[in-house]
Amino acid sequence: MAETYRCVVLARFVDGLAGPDDFAIEIRPVPEPGDGEILVRIIYASLDPGGRSRLSGRVSYIPPLALGDVAGAFNIGQVVTSNNEAYATGDLVVCSFGWTEMGLSKGGGYFAKIQASDLPLSTWIGVLGVPGLTAYFGLKRVAGIKAGETLVVTSAAGMVGATAAQIAKIMGCKVIGVAGGPEKCAWLRDELGLDGAIDYKAADDLGEAIGAAAPDGVDVLFDNVGNRFVDTLLPRMNMNGRIVVSGQVGDYNLAPEDVHGIKNTRVFITHRVRMEGLVVFDDLAQFPAAQAEMAAWIKAGKLLYREKIYDGVEQAPQAFRDMFEGTYFGRHLVRLAPEP
Amino acid sequence: MAETYRCVVLARFVDGLAGPDDFAIEIRPVPEPGDGEILVRIIYASLDPGGRSRLSGRVSYIPPLALGDVAGAFNIGQVVTSNNEAYATGDLVVCSFGWTEMGLSKGGGYFAKIQASDLPLSTWIGVLGVPGLTAYFGLKRVAGIKAGETLVVTSAAGMVGATAAQIAKIMGCKVIGVAGGPEKCAWLRDELGLDGAIDYKAADDLGEAIGAAAPDGVDVLFDNVGNRFVDTLLPRMNMNGRIVVSGQVGDYNLAPEDVHGIKNTRVFITHRVRMEGLVVFDDLAQFPAAQAEMAAWIKAGKLLYREKIYDGVEQAPQAFRDMFEGTYFGRHLVRLAPEP
Repeated sequence: MAETYRCVVLARFVDGLAGPDDFAIEIRPVPEPGDGEILVRIIYASLDPGGRSRLSGRVSYIPPLALGDVAGAFNIGQVVTSNNEAYATGDLVVCSFGWTEMGLSKGGGYFAKIQASDLPLSTWIGVLGVPGLTAYFGLKRVAGIKAGETLVVTSAAGMVGATAAQIAKIMGCKVIGVAGGPEKCAWLRDELGLDGAIDYKAADDLGEAIGAAAPDGVDVLFDNVGNRFVDTLLPRMNMNGRIVVSGQVGDYNLAPEDVHGIKNTRVFITHRVRMEGLVVFDDLAQFPAAQAEMAAWIKAGKLLYREKIYDGVEQAPQAFRDMFEGTYFGRHLVRLAPEP
Repeated sequence: MAETYRCVVLARFVDGLAGPDDFAIEIRPVPEPGDGEILVRIIYASLDPGGRSRLSGRVSYIPPLALGDVAGAFNIGQVVTSNNEAYATGDLVVCSFGWTEMGLSKGGGYFAKIQASDLPLSTWIGVLGVPGLTAYFGLKRVAGIKAGETLVVTSAAGMVGATAAQIAKIMGCKVIGVAGGPEKCAWLRDELGLDGAIDYKAADDLGEAIGAAAPDGVDVLFDNVGNRFVDTLLPRMNMNGRIVVSGQVGDYNLAPEDVHGIKNTRVFITHRVRMEGLVVFDDLAQFPAAQAEMAAWIKAGKLLYREKIYDGVEQAPQAFRDMFEGTYFGRHLVRLAPEP
């Protein structure tokens, strides 16, 4: 086993888009696991838009990273050495060590064995991981979506959005996706079978485009983008409409004062609209049941996903930038070691 | 019986504060009730901040009044003539004819007999009417408030706010009221027994003032004022906090583009905040039970209320203006005929 490993740390606080210049590679000695500890080699690390919130040095309701901290991410890894009887060498686990080739854990928090499955390993950090589960619980618990309702999903070609859109289709809803660019919209329409796909970059008036696609109004907005889209959609919400605040990818890179302010709040009263955010770890106890249901949909060909995989921990900062620039679509992952 | 009656109609579309110049008095012939119809003499008419939304001529999610329409309001009235077997001459009713001395109804919608009670008649259009019920169902159904939680109420010296604040105290909550001016704050603190009262006109930084009064954060914001206060309170919300959008008295007089935009929405995700509006008529079937509970609180001296009563239908426009300018406080009413 190598005696050192690499990780990506925050090198300077970020304004605007984060990219390679904001991070540095560090080489660290592989630690010796102590009592109850588990040493994990990372196979995959995720790129999560929400991670941007912690890179500015500002306290933004959650603690920011300090300079020199490893950038946060979810991972799939394999146990190298275990002093914890619940885990054995060779076990595959989901965990959250960040952009790093190795991690040391006592097994608490988001650290769990991956059950044997005939699905690709990467699904456990994608469609069956945090983004897919966010879609599942956002629709089922937060929105309480019902067959026959009309759903609008923003950032619909991202992993959260595409999963939410497909689950809503499976549940019998009419689904309109909003995404940037014709390629993503074609995928939403032709491959995922959505009822409509709107290219927000090409729309003169997004509100009117959504009005044309959903002439009977919108029952649920599943928003991954942020305030501007929420404000645009509010006047289109139906009575008892729900807005799921899943993510704010359009706002994470903005200084607080540059974020769009939501004005169309009269609708909360006139149409009894409810807006609610979620962090999926509140549903941790229900993850296995949700994953089983989603795995069955994947095997039946009803739940598709796309991945863009980068190789090498040093690629993480560029991959993070590409994700915000919308260069590719689907789940962005970095592969740090070959699958076993 | 008089052969004519007076009513107040919209004379021009309103920008900014509405007042006497925006309305006209019309004299109309008393109609003859047809089959199933009930002729009602109005005793009280309400002044409701939300009514401002319909005076601008703009479609603001609900239909605006046309020029010449009678201004909307809730009423207490007495049946003069009835061709409807459910109502008899002399019955006292709650209804919603507006700023008018007479009304003709078939008995549908918000039209109901007032049960015999030893409470003043005006309570049925105030603390036991739409504003009091909005407070009751906003706290109980929308917020689901629980003993031990911290509540902030804005426009706390208004009828909705003061009722919400007192119900929350009865339920065992810590309650901070926000109001304009020292007289209102003294009433909230000394008469209603709130745990804190903040004069927003005197506070250099309202967020900090609330932070000092509620150092453990805010579980429920019961907002009657609008976007600026919601945005200020959002960073103070606790995990699983709820914002009840009850009214927007600070925004009704503004042109849509001048309304404050809410930016601090990251909290919806990080703190799982839920924001939801209400219109109390959704709870119509539960009105009698709520009124019985509130009537008992009034008799026990636990639920106080203030009224400012104007005499004569022609006073309604000035009373409406006074209400927005905060000249008086409590429920604003116009008395159109003596109580029987």
